[in-house]
Amino acid sequence: MTRGSIFVISAPSGAGKSTLIKRLIARMPELSFSVSYTTRAPRAQEEDGSDYNFVSRKVFERMVRRDEFVEWAEVYGHLYGTAQKPLRAAQEKGRDILLDIDVQGHAQVRRRLPEAVSIFILPPSFQELARRLRDRHSDAEEEIERRLNTARGEIAHWPEYDYVVVNDLKKDATQALEVIVRASRFRRHTQAAQVEKIIGTFGG
Amino acid sequence: MTRGSIFVISAPSGAGKSTLIKRLIARMPELSFSVSYTTRAPRAQEEDGSDYNFVSRKVFERMVRRDEFVEWAEVYGHLYGTAQKPLRAAQEKGRDILLDIDVQGHAQVRRRLPEAVSIFILPPSFQELARRLRDRHSDAEEEIERRLNTARGEIAHWPEYDYVVVNDLKKDATQALEVIVRASRFRRHTQAAQVEKIIGTFGG
Repeated sequence: MTRGSIFVISAPSGAGKSTLIKRLIARMPELSFSVSYTTRAPRAQEEDGSDYNFVSRKVFERMVRRDEFVEWAEVYGHLYGTAQKPLRAAQEKGRDILLDIDVQGHAQVRRRLPEAVSIFILPPSFQELARRLRDRHSDAEEEIERRLNTARGEIAHWPEYDYVVVNDLKKDATQALEVIVRASRFRRHTQAAQVEKIIGTFGG
Repeated sequence: MTRGSIFVISAPSGAGKSTLIKRLIARMPELSFSVSYTTRAPRAQEEDGSDYNFVSRKVFERMVRRDEFVEWAEVYGHLYGTAQKPLRAAQEKGRDILLDIDVQGHAQVRRRLPEAVSIFILPPSFQELARRLRDRHSDAEEEIERRLNTARGEIAHWPEYDYVVVNDLKKDATQALEVIVRASRFRRHTQAAQVEKIIGTFGG
């Protein structure tokens, strides 16, 4: 059996990452999605164990002390983190697992799980990103400016990623993610157990 | 435009590499195939410039002195090599190019072109490799034993390759090669020029 791979997907806000991930999982239902831990309260319609694992600050801090997170951060007073155990469990079962995390989270994951495959989603241009954020009508202009500034800082991290996918509406970016996932099943790391078995038959 | 990638495909004799490469190019006619230089005489039906670039030893040795090869070797008194110039030309044109070379050639290519994507083709087992070599009826038993021994040494090099594809007849190994090629079009290296252009629009 081949080992499952861990995929990290990052993107600046407005690049369309969440939609792409939903479409990818619809096309590849064999993919698992990593559920983060958080100390913030669940919002309406959010389900514990599906959207997030909602835990108390005490539980979260104990997990930090026990080194159970591959990445964690405090954002606006709430803690968010990705636990290592479910990732390892998925890998052992040969299941590929997807992590939706930001560039800071990815920097932590790289150190802990250097074999993870990382993908950065880019908008086709700054103008297109601004247009998409404004079309949402949900954010005040000030908030949009803040997001665009954050995006500027985030895209500078693209060289830390294995793959870059431009979410251009004229191209099928979901298809791009799909071939990256499929190709990863033939990576040296993924195939190691199977290869060792074959090499065993050579009596070497 | 995205930059073309260089693919190195190696396999022990009998693993089915030549057939896989033929099928891959039939499915992806946009792929180029690197034509090696050799000092050996053309065989019947071999075409200069298509099967090999047939050159004199004098010409070949001058190319070696001018450092024009990314890899070269002497095999049974004949020189064989892969020139760098056509690889770079293909890359600049955005064309992916395939190199069919052995594990020694790959070791040289890795040093010269670290961004090349390498794929090792494995037979499903020693027994299956032996069966395939014997089924060809073309080789004497002594020659088959020699090939199997060489294969033993070659497969030890699998950890030097990015990808490992097992040529199991129950699975579609050509499809595996195809997704590896397609995924490579989204690698950081390949996308660099496009990404720089997008970053330019952020005024960063």
